[in-house]
Amino acid sequence: MLDIPPHLEPVQELLGRSLARVEEVFNGAIASDLPPVKALCEHVERYRGKMLRPALVVLCGLAAGGEAGKTRNGEGGGSALSAQHSALPLEDHFVIAAVCEMIHMATLVHDDVLDDADTRRGGRTVNGLHGNEAAVILGDYLFSAAYRLCATLDRDGGRGGQRAALLIGQTGMTLCAGELLQLAHRGDLSLDEPTYFEIVDRKTASLIAAACRLGALTTLDLVEGLGEAERERIAGRFAEFGRLLGIAFQIQDDLLDLAGNQATVGKPLGRDAELGKVTLPVIHHLSVASAEQRGRTLLMLESAGARGAGEGGTEEGEMLAALEATGSLKHARQTARTLVTDAKRALMDADSGVPESPAKRFLLTMADAVVDRAF
Amino acid sequence: MLDIPPHLEPVQELLGRSLARVEEVFNGAIASDLPPVKALCEHVERYRGKMLRPALVVLCGLAAGGEAGKTRNGEGGGSALSAQHSALPLEDHFVIAAVCEMIHMATLVHDDVLDDADTRRGGRTVNGLHGNEAAVILGDYLFSAAYRLCATLDRDGGRGGQRAALLIGQTGMTLCAGELLQLAHRGDLSLDEPTYFEIVDRKTASLIAAACRLGALTTLDLVEGLGEAERERIAGRFAEFGRLLGIAFQIQDDLLDLAGNQATVGKPLGRDAELGKVTLPVIHHLSVASAEQRGRTLLMLESAGARGAGEGGTEEGEMLAALEATGSLKHARQTARTLVTDAKRALMDADSGVPESPAKRFLLTMADAVVDRAF
Repeated sequence: MLDIPPHLEPVQELLGRSLARVEEVFNGAIASDLPPVKALCEHVERYRGKMLRPALVVLCGLAAGGEAGKTRNGEGGGSALSAQHSALPLEDHFVIAAVCEMIHMATLVHDDVLDDADTRRGGRTVNGLHGNEAAVILGDYLFSAAYRLCATLDRDGGRGGQRAALLIGQTGMTLCAGELLQLAHRGDLSLDEPTYFEIVDRKTASLIAAACRLGALTTLDLVEGLGEAERERIAGRFAEFGRLLGIAFQIQDDLLDLAGNQATVGKPLGRDAELGKVTLPVIHHLSVASAEQRGRTLLMLESAGARGAGEGGTEEGEMLAALEATGSLKHARQTARTLVTDAKRALMDADSGVPESPAKRFLLTMADAVVDRAF
Repeated sequence: MLDIPPHLEPVQELLGRSLARVEEVFNGAIASDLPPVKALCEHVERYRGKMLRPALVVLCGLAAGGEAGKTRNGEGGGSALSAQHSALPLEDHFVIAAVCEMIHMATLVHDDVLDDADTRRGGRTVNGLHGNEAAVILGDYLFSAAYRLCATLDRDGGRGGQRAALLIGQTGMTLCAGELLQLAHRGDLSLDEPTYFEIVDRKTASLIAAACRLGALTTLDLVEGLGEAERERIAGRFAEFGRLLGIAFQIQDDLLDLAGNQATVGKPLGRDAELGKVTLPVIHHLSVASAEQRGRTLLMLESAGARGAGEGGTEEGEMLAALEATGSLKHARQTARTLVTDAKRALMDADSGVPESPAKRFLLTMADAVVDRAF
């Protein structure tokens, strides 16, 4: 995914080892002795994708420690962390990373039920293979496992776990509220930009922001001489980075659904229109197109929506040409790029309180990659 | 529901006031500013039923305090509780009660999706009224709200909340695992008693046991001079009471599905057979019936299962007569009664560590009512 410059390779190696540990924690937390549960959990393991959220937990955890982020590679020095905690990332980071990925996975499993999807990341979905019933219950199982795992965080006499549980529970509510808002606007071809952004902010950006905030806080807790207010302020910068990046990430997802390569993306394209989901390029297009073109596009959208999910249509090329003609794909791409620029600024501003470090460099490189990705 | 002797009326009044407060906590915890979320939450409020789990949290909380359970009515005396905490139930009990009810509600909302049910407690289901998508997301919202609410428990520097969160998260996993086990045996007409009991233990009894344990622990935490081991032992008695009661409760549910009055029960009857769920009376019947009768019953079950949910059938009377003829309804009723007797013993044994109190008497009366109920 990333084109990593040589000086960031140690971070990439550390990240790779960290994500392997996150997978262990994840698999351990959902393990069951019951054969039918076991079979579904093994399916979930194959389901794993980019692990964006776990990567952000780990990297924000490293970046919040500044130079201390290097210490596992023996290059430490100038760390503001107390000596006994100087080796980052901590086991708590892996636990939080697994929690975030599990919540994300639960929503994916349920999304596939809602969207009646058969393929995800190139493989069969849980509902496609085991039926909707199993998929609904498996999602609930993953939600429960995530919250249980969160409650195992034991730092500061249970306090650290409680803070994480509050934020993760709140984020779960927020993302469900976002999904309900999206559902209420299904087939609403007059959806406006503010509502679109409110949906995306809640359903996608909230969990990515929480991952960044908790990753950073877990490290900042250990930085000596840092007051509560300053800790929250710096963590807020990481959360803002995650939130803006999350919105950009969703816009890129929407663009890939319209103009991506199906084999690379790993799921059928054009589904948003079929599911009555109006996305940023379409909103822009409808607001700038001529009355005549607008009429033609609305007819295409209505016929895709009426056709329903997975039926496939013939007007995909025409729709893409229409969006190109009004510069709407370009507008969405530009919006995503601006969001990424703002996200990076949240960590780069002179007053951000986030010191230079390889991990911070890595985060900035990753942010650019989010809008360049083809999958 | 309960025929309350006069000397327990103060407990009933206290319980009534407590459940009103639980409803407030519940509604506050799921509140949202988004209109589509609000509409669904209002639907959930109308969905509320017997509030068995909240009642058990409150009553076990009172009973674990012994005579202290009376103090809110000004009749206290002989309490082993520290003075500042002598007024039971505590706000923490209401929070835990709301958490348990919310988890239960989330599973009900999803169960109705899985069972394609249109009515529940005499009203339309969420999926029937708002579609499966809204019902799946609403269930997720309720799960998240329950775990967030659990994380607000702040006793003992976050420790009490952490213990509750661990148990509630674990219980959520257990009940989902029970549902997956049940799903794996859908249509399995050779289901045996041990597997039936394992399913019921996980999917129904686990949450009821957790409600009793946490209700008791929340009080026991405050009893002076009680060691950790003794606290856990007494809480274990309450959990055992809840577990056995929960199994009896489910058997009664199964009996009502076969032989209840549809208007009183508030949902269509005979659905278990239509959904391929084999319950205790049927298991007993198939194990004792003559080869000929067995063949006829299997045919009836297969035709109900093939017909599917909500289609209605003509052989309900015949099935009931067959179950009566082999004494299978009586066997199930007897099994439920024995479980209730064992449940009561968990609190009544001389070494139970649960002192006599009006709240304990109330729990024992309630236990009897579980197998006498017609709804």
